[in-house]
Amino acid sequence: MKIGVIGLGLIGGSVALSLRKNRPSVQLYGADKSSLHLQQALELNLVDCELSKDQWSQMDVLFLAIPVDATVKLLPQVLEGVSSSTLVIDMGSTKAAIVEAVAQHPRRDQFLAAHPIAGTEFSGPQAAFEGLFEGKITILCDAEKTAASSREKGIELLEAMHMRLIYMDAAAHDLHVAYVSHLSHVSSFMLGQTVLDMEKNPETIVELAGSGFASTVRLAKSSAAMWAPIFQQNKRHVLKALYAYIGHLNTFADALEAEDTDQLLELMKKANQIKPILEGMAQNGN
Amino acid sequence: MKIGVIGLGLIGGSVALSLRKNRPSVQLYGADKSSLHLQQALELNLVDCELSKDQWSQMDVLFLAIPVDATVKLLPQVLEGVSSSTLVIDMGSTKAAIVEAVAQHPRRDQFLAAHPIAGTEFSGPQAAFEGLFEGKITILCDAEKTAASSREKGIELLEAMHMRLIYMDAAAHDLHVAYVSHLSHVSSFMLGQTVLDMEKNPETIVELAGSGFASTVRLAKSSAAMWAPIFQQNKRHVLKALYAYIGHLNTFADALEAEDTDQLLELMKKANQIKPILEGMAQNGN
Repeated sequence: MKIGVIGLGLIGGSVALSLRKNRPSVQLYGADKSSLHLQQALELNLVDCELSKDQWSQMDVLFLAIPVDATVKLLPQVLEGVSSSTLVIDMGSTKAAIVEAVAQHPRRDQFLAAHPIAGTEFSGPQAAFEGLFEGKITILCDAEKTAASSREKGIELLEAMHMRLIYMDAAAHDLHVAYVSHLSHVSSFMLGQTVLDMEKNPETIVELAGSGFASTVRLAKSSAAMWAPIFQQNKRHVLKALYAYIGHLNTFADALEAEDTDQLLELMKKANQIKPILEGMAQNGN
Repeated sequence: MKIGVIGLGLIGGSVALSLRKNRPSVQLYGADKSSLHLQQALELNLVDCELSKDQWSQMDVLFLAIPVDATVKLLPQVLEGVSSSTLVIDMGSTKAAIVEAVAQHPRRDQFLAAHPIAGTEFSGPQAAFEGLFEGKITILCDAEKTAASSREKGIELLEAMHMRLIYMDAAAHDLHVAYVSHLSHVSSFMLGQTVLDMEKNPETIVELAGSGFASTVRLAKSSAAMWAPIFQQNKRHVLKALYAYIGHLNTFADALEAEDTDQLLELMKKANQIKPILEGMAQNGN
């Protein structure tokens, strides 16, 4: 089986490594718009050889693991360029704009929209690792629009990578991930900036901050180039989540300003209800 | 050496366990206003026996590891009740109100104000563990107001627990921790609440959220009873930090609303500067 991976960063590189482990017979072709990343991916043995555009049609499956704005542009061209039996799977963190981009495409049924809930704050081929998707949820969106045979081929391959698959429509996906993923990233990016603004001497942070700070600000290390298009494609939901968050922060500030101990306690105790949810996630291996 | 610990939760319990390991000859006395926690602490062998008020004067060192509002009330009474050679150390997360509460106390020089930058989101005697302070920073505030002999006794004991000691005045301490600790807690508490508000079915969060969400919201599990007085005692600085954070979130929202990609990228790239700081913290073992 010939598998192509376009975009050899954390996600694409980890797809290649996972396939190499779980499907040792596959031949892996890779492409990246950065010649440095392509070279690194070949050196790290993520893929066997370079994938050129005119080889797209030779692929049995082609993964797109590039920023979501690039996916919207490239996906229709990829569908044009593949054979009538190639399955194309995208791995982006937004889904509505991507499925919309190919809604009328004659080869829409060769495309499967996927979002693996897996990642780290690192990026590039060197951040890729074999076990990234192990036991992790992957959301398949609007999967009924993929032809049954292609869908089954995709499911079989994703399950071989030990992803746990769930199904959702693209609009619902984008709404939920705005709250449970995208908002966390905004909160962390801006928390990082607030502290950097205040603490002019980085040594002070290094000395005084503890594991709680590190935990809340970890995502501020994430790739700006990857996240800007995600926020923009999911603008409506992200803004709604962000304004709700700002509203809660203002409520907290008001309670503190008014020295309303009861309300402060109530706000925090409500938030404590996240505890069983985090325990459930840990049990699930999220 | 007889050592008393008032408050047998995560911090006090871990003090007892660390002393038991690193100073096996100490006799450990403990008190907790919750009879359940006291019983648990005795069963878990955190301390050897109960500490009653009339035994305060027999202690060589007495640790206070109780909520900071309780510390402000109890500390003057404790100083009254101890002997003239007892050292009293508090372990609270705020410092200005605590040192202020005993500024004029005739036994001020028997008191050492300490803040270990160590903790977890768990609380109670069962959350205590021996290695909590291992290699962690502890800030000693206004240490010049402690008599030299008492201060040296305290330093010797804290260093035996493998804390790394740094010195700061109480006002500066409260300002810095508002940014590098207290703000992280507010951000996490309110992030938890925002997501709980939106996602009425906890299963959705369990299914869809990943490690990034878990990381940013972990502190929302923290004890409300412990944190309300911290926020209140450090109200001025916490509000300043919180308003700065809300300001940055609004700037981000405005840039997203205006589809200003350049500004979004700039905001995130600025936040990326937290990366070497987090690496420095990891190297330090924070």
